[in-house]
Amino acid sequence: MSLHRREFLSGSILAGSAGLAYLAGTPVTTRGEEQHTDLIRPGSVILFQGDSITDTGRSRETADTPNQRSTLGSGYAWLAASQLLVDRPDANLKIYNRGISGNKVPDLAKRWDVDCLNLKPDVLSILIGVNDYWHRRNGRYDGTLDSYETGYRELLQRTLEKLPSVKLVLCEPFALNTGKVDDSWFPELDGYRAVAKKMSEEFRTVFVPFQQAFDRAVAYAEPAEWAADGVHPSPSGAALMAHEWQKQVQGK
Amino acid sequence: MSLHRREFLSGSILAGSAGLAYLAGTPVTTRGEEQHTDLIRPGSVILFQGDSITDTGRSRETADTPNQRSTLGSGYAWLAASQLLVDRPDANLKIYNRGISGNKVPDLAKRWDVDCLNLKPDVLSILIGVNDYWHRRNGRYDGTLDSYETGYRELLQRTLEKLPSVKLVLCEPFALNTGKVDDSWFPELDGYRAVAKKMSEEFRTVFVPFQQAFDRAVAYAEPAEWAADGVHPSPSGAALMAHEWQKQVQGK
Repeated sequence: MSLHRREFLSGSILAGSAGLAYLAGTPVTTRGEEQHTDLIRPGSVILFQGDSITDTGRSRETADTPNQRSTLGSGYAWLAASQLLVDRPDANLKIYNRGISGNKVPDLAKRWDVDCLNLKPDVLSILIGVNDYWHRRNGRYDGTLDSYETGYRELLQRTLEKLPSVKLVLCEPFALNTGKVDDSWFPELDGYRAVAKKMSEEFRTVFVPFQQAFDRAVAYAEPAEWAADGVHPSPSGAALMAHEWQKQVQGK
Repeated sequence: MSLHRREFLSGSILAGSAGLAYLAGTPVTTRGEEQHTDLIRPGSVILFQGDSITDTGRSRETADTPNQRSTLGSGYAWLAASQLLVDRPDANLKIYNRGISGNKVPDLAKRWDVDCLNLKPDVLSILIGVNDYWHRRNGRYDGTLDSYETGYRELLQRTLEKLPSVKLVLCEPFALNTGKVDDSWFPELDGYRAVAKKMSEEFRTVFVPFQQAFDRAVAYAEPAEWAADGVHPSPSGAALMAHEWQKQVQGK
């Protein structure tokens, strides 16, 4: 059962006013006892936003041409997109990637009009947070966990003011204990994961629990097989992420 | 709607006696108007069989240790397996890969006792056929399309005699028109695809239409992005295959 469903069933989570507006614009159909949460509709514009894990070498030149490998990079966004497009060849989906390496929440905020709101996405997937922690840790950034939360909430409120019916997918920041990542990252990074989940609950979005997936995945392959430096996924890691994203977004 | 469902709904396909035995041992639940075809159960032993596309550099030393990256290789079998294992951490699945590079149907037959029947799989996935065509084409093999069909049918009959309740997943052989593959491969290769589908219908198995997926996928990336030599999938190609496999096997 996805988080989305749990929230609906428990009804115990308070949503901010923006969150309620989002909820009101998102009919959830009931199929037997299950909540069906497939967010994709014919004609949907789908936007992936984030940092290097989303960027994955995408071409800036073709950024306005949807659905192409060059536009979408080589990571989870490309894999999830290509699978959606192959699954639904007649759905006229338009899928974009505007992730930029090194980005933190304030970097998204600076380019949000051009790289999100103007594209008018129907489905907006965001994966942000590991640099908000990492760059602070290595002294390149003075933001805090509190500013991550405040900035993330402002970004989502601003999004819903302009795009009140957008369907949001918030992805969990994650790291694997290998490469550039060691024990000292935890539990500090967990705070950023918790904020992403809190935002998902406040705004009643779909949530993609990447850290949980990787925590399970290391039973079957070394952490470095999933992400050599602990942060940037390998092809296997990207495929696992695409699978998790599909499960949550398509409500399966 | 999967082929499996179409067959059930049409009821127009004659099954051989082995196929009927298989059908009898495979209850199909009905959920509303949908046929639910999830083949995986708690405790299932799942075996991937095939050629190099399945093998993908798996370790022979760890072949008897299920669920590990080394055992499962680096291709679609590994990706599908790792996703299943992460999805169902408490299901006690045991997943093996016994694909061997260069194999054709008669090669599978020679090692079938050791590399299939003795493992007593609950779910058996087979991808075989491209070498049955390719090696004949380049003069290394004198088998024909007819011997592919006859040999494949015998292999499946033999499997069901020993393992009457095994759930079969037959995968479509495929090629992309790039690298070592050119126009002259088609429509000859289509005959092998048609036989694999015919076997799936005769034995009423799940069918994974890989060629159809790649035929759609080339709208979004060059054929070489999916398989540089036209035969062996790239990481993106393997991820797409794992996705297609999951869709058909989990009935989604």
